[in-house]
Amino acid sequence: MARQASAPALQLDVESFRLILAERLPFAETMGINVDYFADDHVRLRAVYNDRFLRPGGTIAGPVMMGLADAALYALVLSRIGAVELAVTTSLSINFLRKPMPADLVADARMLKLGKRLAVGEVTLFSEELGADDPVAHVTGTYSIPPPESRL
Amino acid sequence: MARQASAPALQLDVESFRLILAERLPFAETMGINVDYFADDHVRLRAVYNDRFLRPGGTIAGPVMMGLADAALYALVLSRIGAVELAVTTSLSINFLRKPMPADLVADARMLKLGKRLAVGEVTLFSEELGADDPVAHVTGTYSIPPPESRL
Amino acid sequence: MARQASAPALQLDVESFRLILAERLPFAETMGINVDYFADDHVRLRAVYNDRFLRPGGTIAGPVMMGLADAALYALVLSRIGAVELAVTTSLSINFLRKPMPADLVADARMLKLGKRLAVGEVTLFSEELGADDPVAHVTGTYSIPPPESRL
Amino acid sequence: MARQASAPALQLDVESFRLILAERLPFAETMGINVDYFADDHVRLRAVYNDRFLRPGGTIAGPVMMGLADAALYALVLSRIGAVELAVTTSLSINFLRKPMPADLVADARMLKLGKRLAVGEVTLFSEELGADDPVAHVTGTYSIPPPESRL
Repeated sequence: MARQASAPALQLDVESFRLILAERLPFAETMGINVDYFADDHVRLRAVYNDRFLRPGGTIAGPVMMGLADAALYALVLSRIGAVELAVTTSLSINFLRKPMPADLVADARMLKLGKRLAVGEVTLFSEELGADDPVAHVTGTYSIPPPESRL
Repeated sequence: MARQASAPALQLDVESFRLILAERLPFAETMGINVDYFADDHVRLRAVYNDRFLRPGGTIAGPVMMGLADAALYALVLSRIGAVELAVTTSLSINFLRKPMPADLVADARMLKLGKRLAVGEVTLFSEELGADDPVAHVTGTYSIPPPESRL
Repeated sequence: MARQASAPALQLDVESFRLILAERLPFAETMGINVDYFADDHVRLRAVYNDRFLRPGGTIAGPVMMGLADAALYALVLSRIGAVELAVTTSLSINFLRKPMPADLVADARMLKLGKRLAVGEVTLFSEELGADDPVAHVTGTYSIPPPESRL
Repeated sequence: MARQASAPALQLDVESFRLILAERLPFAETMGINVDYFADDHVRLRAVYNDRFLRPGGTIAGPVMMGLADAALYALVLSRIGAVELAVTTSLSINFLRKPMPADLVADARMLKLGKRLAVGEVTLFSEELGADDPVAHVTGTYSIPPPESRL
């Protein structure tokens, strides 16, 4: 029986994504990024806290939040289209909402639209200390999906 | 004689900003960020190339570009308001334009509007290999300027 | 007893907001904007379909969606801070997700962060024809809240 | 002889674009949009002032600025790819910089990147009263260019 449009299947297993993170995205290791949850409709990544994240004021620097959000969108896109490593961000917008104290950062990503050429997703970032009800940042981002013939 | 609105003065010298980068923003050191040029109307920062910047496809990862752009906006704001370290990004939008090959990244920041509470700036990112006529990304960002009484 | 942070109260009734729309925002009338729902944690506005919304391809033009989303954020902010008409948008980002066919457009707005100086909200736009599960656009926007002494 | 990448030619004449505005984009007429300048590397549109643009505070409403900027990007894209009316905005970000008093609004658009599938442009909006040195808003936007086989 045909799979329904409303039930997309996971196109990549979590272990394969962890391998991509570990071997192909060195900045993800620099940022201590781990995978907490990996499904076709929801991905959760975590940046394990490190003193190198800090900025003046004793809070976590914006680039850490942006890097984690971008990785979460990448994970979400690959969970839906498979190991198309050449998918690239075309745009990203972030609103910083609250200052994250020194603690792990968590990123929840969900898809807004998966098209043939573009995927648009949304990421909510929260601090393990503040909890999910008080997000520290909100991100939307667009990935360009390379056409099949250019994926090698 | 009163300073004219059209002639803002530099409120921070480059050595003071380098000290903030070195001692207060550890991620900037992780990203190899240097100051090329530092004036009140134009700041140029550089991320010295490192293999850890790479992503699949052999190009530089988005988070490196976002981190460099954010640091350039921070530098630009401080060049105009002085060492107000607690100025924080409230939003940032980036459009990725071209894929940067392995080479230094350069960020040129200029102010669009400096208000009492918000500063809005624009950053053009280019790769030393492609040159300034073919920018690799374009960024706009907003910084919140803390009121004087809370800057202690 | 102090009101709890988790229980914001509605600071403006829907009739007062309708009056602001009708008398103070003429473009809202041009766009056929109505209020469907108005609470402190959720506002829903509607743009009643008009052939003047169309663009090539027979779908609704982007500016109609942006105008409706901006009005929905304004409504949401006023529902929380009262009739502070001088609250102004400082930034807005929209991702267009699907093409809306000729039908009413609906905008659901919810608050991401209400601070003293800035409010950040999120709007999901959908077409009455496609339904809320297939949004046509996603918007985030920031409003600047004027300090009490400048509200007259 | 092949045209050089650095010398794009105008792919649409201004009269053809004026016809598209007049016959295919009714909201542009509602907003009083005219073409001031139309070349392959720079387009300038104008929204002729109308009292219906006003919002509380006696300044011009955000949706007027967003609509004008979107039209300017559309004009710029068509100036470069020809009368591909089905080109659609995929994302747009605006930063509001200054409050425009009652006067004509002018939008200057220039291309940041014209690719095969996406075009990214930048728009500076200014008020005829304040002049181009004090822009009232800054916009970036992305248009999706339909593949040739779907342009009929």
